[in-house]
Amino acid sequence: MGETGGIVFDAGRLEEFARRVFVQFGVRAADAEEAARILSLADLRGIDSHGIARLHAYSRMLDKGRINPAPEMTIVRETPGTATVDGDNGLGLIVGPWANRLAMEKAETVGTGWVAVRGSNHFGIAGYYVLEALERDQLGWAMTNTTKIVAPMWGAERMLGTNPIAIAFPGCEEPPIVIDMASPAAAYGKIEMAIREDKSIPEGWAIDRDGVPTTEPNEMADGGAMLPLGSTREQGGHKGYCLGAMIDLLSGVLSGANWGPFAPVFTTEFEEPPRRVGIGLGHLFGAMRIDAFIDPDEFKRQVDDWIRTFRQTKPAPGTDGPIIPGDPEREAESVRRESGIPLVAAVVEDLREVAEISGVPFD
Amino acid sequence: MGETGGIVFDAGRLEEFARRVFVQFGVRAADAEEAARILSLADLRGIDSHGIARLHAYSRMLDKGRINPAPEMTIVRETPGTATVDGDNGLGLIVGPWANRLAMEKAETVGTGWVAVRGSNHFGIAGYYVLEALERDQLGWAMTNTTKIVAPMWGAERMLGTNPIAIAFPGCEEPPIVIDMASPAAAYGKIEMAIREDKSIPEGWAIDRDGVPTTEPNEMADGGAMLPLGSTREQGGHKGYCLGAMIDLLSGVLSGANWGPFAPVFTTEFEEPPRRVGIGLGHLFGAMRIDAFIDPDEFKRQVDDWIRTFRQTKPAPGTDGPIIPGDPEREAESVRRESGIPLVAAVVEDLREVAEISGVPFD
Repeated sequence: MGETGGIVFDAGRLEEFARRVFVQFGVRAADAEEAARILSLADLRGIDSHGIARLHAYSRMLDKGRINPAPEMTIVRETPGTATVDGDNGLGLIVGPWANRLAMEKAETVGTGWVAVRGSNHFGIAGYYVLEALERDQLGWAMTNTTKIVAPMWGAERMLGTNPIAIAFPGCEEPPIVIDMASPAAAYGKIEMAIREDKSIPEGWAIDRDGVPTTEPNEMADGGAMLPLGSTREQGGHKGYCLGAMIDLLSGVLSGANWGPFAPVFTTEFEEPPRRVGIGLGHLFGAMRIDAFIDPDEFKRQVDDWIRTFRQTKPAPGTDGPIIPGDPEREAESVRRESGIPLVAAVVEDLREVAEISGVPFD
Repeated sequence: MGETGGIVFDAGRLEEFARRVFVQFGVRAADAEEAARILSLADLRGIDSHGIARLHAYSRMLDKGRINPAPEMTIVRETPGTATVDGDNGLGLIVGPWANRLAMEKAETVGTGWVAVRGSNHFGIAGYYVLEALERDQLGWAMTNTTKIVAPMWGAERMLGTNPIAIAFPGCEEPPIVIDMASPAAAYGKIEMAIREDKSIPEGWAIDRDGVPTTEPNEMADGGAMLPLGSTREQGGHKGYCLGAMIDLLSGVLSGANWGPFAPVFTTEFEEPPRRVGIGLGHLFGAMRIDAFIDPDEFKRQVDDWIRTFRQTKPAPGTDGPIIPGDPEREAESVRRESGIPLVAAVVEDLREVAEISGVPFD
């Protein structure tokens, strides 16, 4: 049994399974390899909801022909520093890396590159893309809109996705600062876990189908909604709503994708949105060459100093003091590379179903 | 008496006073005009803490020679899409607009422009800069670090500023969506107001000098700290900390300015930071030409649709439903352009002192 009480699998084995499943559904070899690597990275970094657990939803969508396994990405508009890409309804794990590389190439040329993407699908962890940028001494930005599940402040229904944003800053001797956060108060995975364990959830996470705050996770799942970061007007919930809206407008509207409540679903289990306002799901990738702004060595030394300074913050009572964004994921990775990925029974069952649908053996 | 119980002044009269004060301190005519306009815009839009109320702090800093009234901005590093600007320790209300224009000019050329700024000072409302971008059919981004006052999640001391971020999206028939938000749970102005009115503050806004959550505003002011958006770990306070950290790293570290607890003070009443890690205060401006991504008319029609769709959200019980970011400021502006700017007695007193220091008559 693993750290969370699940069955433990070797990360490489899960990645290989995912790769073969993607290939089986018609994904090109190199794309399948990268797509599987993105899922594996999520598992290694402890972001269980975005790892191999998603393979079931991807497989169903591929199996039903609702996602294109071999998309031909096209640039529909372009300047030296920007582009808009149509992802040909491809797997987001293929379209995202392609568009992110385009942003980084533009940054090589003119210092910064920004690529909006439409016609895509769920792209995995946003953190993957910004870690890629670090390899080139660039600051990467990644954001995406997602299927509606969050209510805007003062709203009583789902209008926005969990809309994550990621950005990373390299240190010199210290590991990088990696920010990868969704815009609601809590992760949906935590609500799912509370349902599985028959527990209540904290106030501030969710409302029921009438818009009334609830601590019953089932009331959220049953037509309720999650709350934006800040939760209530008094605690700044309007700012969490602004953050989610900003990411939606940049990912969905600027690219010509669907936005807000019309963002496409990522699994066959969800109902299609009532109206189409654009093409597929949207992302925005940004890349900034560090040396376009400052000497990279100087920058990294300052990031080291920043990290050490913040680690030395006087701790709040009962805590060990502030952590640096990216710490928990890096610690998870160092444990899981050694000891494997713990999967809950429901996910293992899903993977057996994936094996059945795809014909790729799991056990 | 005005809407908030203060004495009401004509916006134009306050702007003219600020302009003359700036000129008196050696600010060039055109710069003084724009600086006064930025303060006035804050007052008109209801962001009282960043309007004429700040003139006292600016005047003291100018009077003591701690801010350069006539800076010579220089570009210290440049690519077609990026630049780093040294603000020559100038008034932020001069340096900011200059750097923002540079970002917009770069966007004209290569689709997007990003300008990091060091050696600056407090730059007024972040919203001003992004409204300027709308005039050119660009999406503007503005962010800045500020004097430390916010604790990182699990910290018991001030390490970050209120670090605001702004971005705006133009509609076609609808007014623009204008996001302009600081990264803590609540505005410091609300804590100041609670102190003046001898009231308690809600939980989740602040900690005392020992890092213990407090609802006593004086305990926050007396060596305590504000809390990041999300307030507690359970409610997502680590995400608010990430947001503040991201803005600090982009504004302070990328530009070569001071960062975190070392950001310079904006008033002579605060103690200087213990250590210098860069040059002055830092900002980051971004500009994206809309037509570099999508047909601008199509974009604006979609923004209209977005706005109308979100206005039609089913309202939470006891509310009128979600508002659109920028609504409250636009409504304040339409009222205040007519009826004037209400100033509390303490601000009027401060302005009398400004008149004394500068020799520019206020009454």
